[in-house]
Amino acid sequence: MSHTHTTQFMVEFGDCDPAGIVFYPNFLRWMDAAALRIFATAGVPAWHERPERADDGIIGTPIVDVSVRFIAPATYGERIEIDTAIAEWRRTSFVMQHRIRRDDTLLVEGREVRVFARRHPDDARRIQALPVPPDIRARLEAAS
Amino acid sequence: MSHTHTTQFMVEFGDCDPAGIVFYPNFLRWMDAAALRIFATAGVPAWHERPERADDGIIGTPIVDVSVRFIAPATYGERIEIDTAIAEWRRTSFVMQHRIRRDDTLLVEGREVRVFARRHPDDARRIQALPVPPDIRARLEAAS
Amino acid sequence: MSHTHTTQFMVEFGDCDPAGIVFYPNFLRWMDAAALRIFATAGVPAWHERPERADDGIIGTPIVDVSVRFIAPATYGERIEIDTAIAEWRRTSFVMQHRIRRDDTLLVEGREVRVFARRHPDDARRIQALPVPPDIRARLEAAS
Amino acid sequence: MSHTHTTQFMVEFGDCDPAGIVFYPNFLRWMDAAALRIFATAGVPAWHERPERADDGIIGTPIVDVSVRFIAPATYGERIEIDTAIAEWRRTSFVMQHRIRRDDTLLVEGREVRVFARRHPDDARRIQALPVPPDIRARLEAAS
Repeated sequence: MSHTHTTQFMVEFGDCDPAGIVFYPNFLRWMDAAALRIFATAGVPAWHERPERADDGIIGTPIVDVSVRFIAPATYGERIEIDTAIAEWRRTSFVMQHRIRRDDTLLVEGREVRVFARRHPDDARRIQALPVPPDIRARLEAAS
Repeated sequence: MSHTHTTQFMVEFGDCDPAGIVFYPNFLRWMDAAALRIFATAGVPAWHERPERADDGIIGTPIVDVSVRFIAPATYGERIEIDTAIAEWRRTSFVMQHRIRRDDTLLVEGREVRVFARRHPDDARRIQALPVPPDIRARLEAAS
Repeated sequence: MSHTHTTQFMVEFGDCDPAGIVFYPNFLRWMDAAALRIFATAGVPAWHERPERADDGIIGTPIVDVSVRFIAPATYGERIEIDTAIAEWRRTSFVMQHRIRRDDTLLVEGREVRVFARRHPDDARRIQALPVPPDIRARLEAAS
Repeated sequence: MSHTHTTQFMVEFGDCDPAGIVFYPNFLRWMDAAALRIFATAGVPAWHERPERADDGIIGTPIVDVSVRFIAPATYGERIEIDTAIAEWRRTSFVMQHRIRRDDTLLVEGREVRVFARRHPDDARRIQALPVPPDIRARLEAAS
């Protein structure tokens, strides 16, 4: 398992639903933020700031597949933490694992399969998956 | 397969991310809305309006498990449709299937496992799963 | 007052907060969607689809100023309507008015000042306001 | 001017729109979170945890009026700070001021008028404004 990064979030009133608990898509919003944060903390600049941008034109890491297990709810005023790691590198995709905790209580476990994407060279409205950029993978592995 | 209900959504500018495509947790937000809509269209009132509320105190159908496959992106100005059905009834949970389409193009497939929940009788801050209420299941099956 | 366009939205469970009413920033999310819809219904294509895009490069109509008055709450399962009109055209900005109703009950009144923006020619990360494009204003006025 | 509290937020990829800048209702989402945080940091417990809850039944501080001026945009990967203060106490409402900065660059200024609300004693679906609770006001003023 590579570099694990822990991101903290505060659960806000507006993140919760009429049952008083986190509206579940917000857990995926936080997982998405944690997914990006792991690149930043390994020294990969924001996609729009990469000097290499002119070459590969990465605009994000869209998701191909996600599965999430909800173990315990959370409510507002609580601080949660997400432990994120890249579990597997494939040729054109990678697998991220997220464990969302409130202190030692495991709340949510998620697994995302993502790709690196750029705009399609023939149609700016479409996106296109790229092979995993070696410089990005190397930075993540060095951070392990 | 039970009653299938189709819910339409418009993809808005604010639903899309800097890559110009739907920010993925929004697909789960729409799936959640479609999940509730199938009850409404089968004649089950909103949780806060059920006359039976005094008895079972249902406050929602929190999610236990979700898995989603992202096949094609969508962008703003597009109308999408979600075909939702209850694939399986269990004793204390049920399985929903969602197929998100733009016309005939399949964009996203999702599968949610949910429970019916009420506030815990001993601690209003906790929630508690209930056996599937027979009146609700009967209404969904009658609508098939 | 120009062309008034009415957009319908369904209030979803996930749009509401632990008090059981719409989490207020969602009213601004719907106003933003209605703001874009009025252009679409007057025949202005989505920004990323304008043939003129190569010329003026509009990427959106960012907001300069908004004021909103909240008169009555709404909850999930309710259908709301937003009546949107352009109240005033200025040289480089315009004023939109929104009235959000549930049937005849006025819930929210909002007033947005917006500009047309493109990427800054010298720095793709910054945005730049443009004079109101005459073709867009003409289409809105013709629709009145 | 009372106690000023500064809350930090990270701008996430999913908070930004296809123009690459913060989708504006998110600034109001952060202002709402900052509004609640100022109570917490002055020692007022979360609404659902107040021992006094049995007496006054506060469920939140819904907004009556908001006006916001947008001065400069923000994008993802940026850390922003909101300086929040209560500018005025009235009998049944209070005025909050928010200044959103990225370091010393002022991005957004907002002014919210809010009330304390409880469920209506005769109809749990409606809410009702209360006089400003003296214990809450006293804690905020002591924190100044």
